[in-house]
Amino acid sequence: MAAKPKLHYPNGRGRMESVRWVLAAAGVEFDEEFLETKEQLQKLQDGNHLLFQQVPMVEIDGMKLVQTRSILHYIAEKHHLFGKDLKERTLIDMYVEGTLDLLELIIMHPFLKPDDQQKEVINMAQKAIIRYFPVFEKVLRDHGQRFLVGNQLSLADVILLQTILALEEKIPNILSAFPHLQEFTVKISNIPTIKKFLEPGSKKKPPPDDIYVRTVYNIFMP
Amino acid sequence: MAAKPKLHYPNGRGRMESVRWVLAAAGVEFDEEFLETKEQLQKLQDGNHLLFQQVPMVEIDGMKLVQTRSILHYIAEKHHLFGKDLKERTLIDMYVEGTLDLLELIIMHPFLKPDDQQKEVINMAQKAIIRYFPVFEKVLRDHGQRFLVGNQLSLADVILLQTILALEEKIPNILSAFPHLQEFTVKISNIPTIKKFLEPGSKKKPPPDDIYVRTVYNIFMP
Repeated sequence: MAAKPKLHYPNGRGRMESVRWVLAAAGVEFDEEFLETKEQLQKLQDGNHLLFQQVPMVEIDGMKLVQTRSILHYIAEKHHLFGKDLKERTLIDMYVEGTLDLLELIIMHPFLKPDDQQKEVINMAQKAIIRYFPVFEKVLRDHGQRFLVGNQLSLADVILLQTILALEEKIPNILSAFPHLQEFTVKISNIPTIKKFLEPGSKKKPPPDDIYVRTVYNIFMP
Repeated sequence: MAAKPKLHYPNGRGRMESVRWVLAAAGVEFDEEFLETKEQLQKLQDGNHLLFQQVPMVEIDGMKLVQTRSILHYIAEKHHLFGKDLKERTLIDMYVEGTLDLLELIIMHPFLKPDDQQKEVINMAQKAIIRYFPVFEKVLRDHGQRFLVGNQLSLADVILLQTILALEEKIPNILSAFPHLQEFTVKISNIPTIKKFLEPGSKKKPPPDDIYVRTVYNIFMP
């Protein structure tokens, strides 16, 4: 049996949380090696374990994968979360890319100056409500299925659910005008592998706190 | 015969230039509809032609593709520029993602304040020389082939060549310490489809000038 994938990243969400989500959704167990110091990062860099000297890095199937999207694509492809043909794959890819643009705002949020954080919550809410959620609401309404693409779970569903739940932590009523997305959130959250990931004790990380922010600065700032 | 792809973007490089490169490399002719005013963008948005209200958008094979990476992936997949198996695809994906991170700095450069532009050229040069080029230099040296992955042209080669040539416009000697990348640049530039794209009169766009920057601000600023 192949070794479990090993994830190298600080003990927090950041860019790795999507990878944790997709592995969990695919029912893949994984190990984590948490970066806590600049020296640990340096050691990975010096050992040529990081292609572009950056994390996230995931050891999987004898490779050391880097770049968030590439890691997600590999896992999605391997675990049949990337559609049944090129047309479905392309839809999934577009939905994921749009959602990642929104998620990026959430990932960067804790690193903004305190004065900018409240403004940015408003910006995020507007982007979500005006640009992204109407698209997915319409897809689900027109399509009539549980999933965004085809009739099975894909990377697009997983990343969208991750993003919705992270936004709801900041803006609890963010889905109030989107009944199909509300239903989607409930249904996808109840898929057994995902349900398990959402329960206490899983490898899902809590919202970023001051300790996480300080750890990230300590590791990555020159 | 299928209609030519139609590209919707301002008349300049920006995020669309990679798409032009990949289509050209694949030997695909395309049409362009240049956005020049806010009203033209509004019209595309109002007609629901832009999934997330943004360009680049490419009409191709009956779809309206958006999100730069998704467009690149679709074209690469369709034209056999994405490797022969999942392992090659994943390498190509990682190389492309790294290169796009570098290219992003080049794309944003003309929109920086004049004072910041010179500093940013230094940052770009450092990123290229320290983080990205050594990786590709080593790949080419170890691999001994003309191409980054396998023994045929891929999306990774195309995006890397685009990025090298754009950087050389700003920093002519950027490859001086990278003999294999110099050779790569010459060889990939001489592939017939790419050679044609590099000749005057092609759809390759010139470096961004003040008119382009002003047009972009006029179209996209609220």
